[in-house]
Amino acid sequence: MLGAHDVVARYWEAAGARAWVRFGELLADEVVYELPQTRERVRGRDAYLRFNAEGFTGAWRIAVERIVAAEREAVSLIRLTEPGAEQLAITFFELDEAGRIARVTDFWPEPYRPPAGRAHLTERF
Amino acid sequence: MLGAHDVVARYWEAAGARAWVRFGELLADEVVYELPQTRERVRGRDAYLRFNAEGFTGAWRIAVERIVAAEREAVSLIRLTEPGAEQLAITFFELDEAGRIARVTDFWPEPYRPPAGRAHLTERF
Repeated sequence: MLGAHDVVARYWEAAGARAWVRFGELLADEVVYELPQTRERVRGRDAYLRFNAEGFTGAWRIAVERIVAAEREAVSLIRLTEPGAEQLAITFFELDEAGRIARVTDFWPEPYRPPAGRAHLTERF
Repeated sequence: MLGAHDVVARYWEAAGARAWVRFGELLADEVVYELPQTRERVRGRDAYLRFNAEGFTGAWRIAVERIVAAEREAVSLIRLTEPGAEQLAITFFELDEAGRIARVTDFWPEPYRPPAGRAHLTERF
């Protein structure tokens, strides 16, 4: 059985390759996906595969920046790029006892302007 | 020496209590804070304490929703609330060999409307 780190690495590898069969093999039958920012939810492997296969088109490339993994939990930080665009995503994963992904929760933070009044406390990069 | 999970739990407990001495004891002298969405950076314990003490005012209350911890890394998901407002934050931590926090990177994802054309693939919560 793969550890949580390796499961997550394979998840992003398969997503980046649009290899939906390999991707689906990592998922529990009853996987639940949630996107708290939009309050969208997808239930079950088939529905989640459709959600990804239909939604994850275009020329997006995935780079995994970080994976922090505990026993049956992990979090990834990825960078999606296509010509002229870039987006970070943070994804929380929970694995079931068989090492399959049972829960996925992700976040898509957007750039914003620094709040007023703290320029004296920070530098910019 | 505390593990990464306990260090992060204490970090949020101290921040929530505005207990800046306890908070500072968890930090490495050369701690680096980054906020990729605004491209702000803060270097060093004193500057980072000032950044938090000046910025973290008001009636915000912190609830730790999740901590995923590996050996010298951890990620937290917290929920900040004040009357009429709520905000999620995801924070990546890296600890030094002494178990002090050497790097903090956080993200503040905002709610947004679901992208068009995928309502048939999701439910809402």
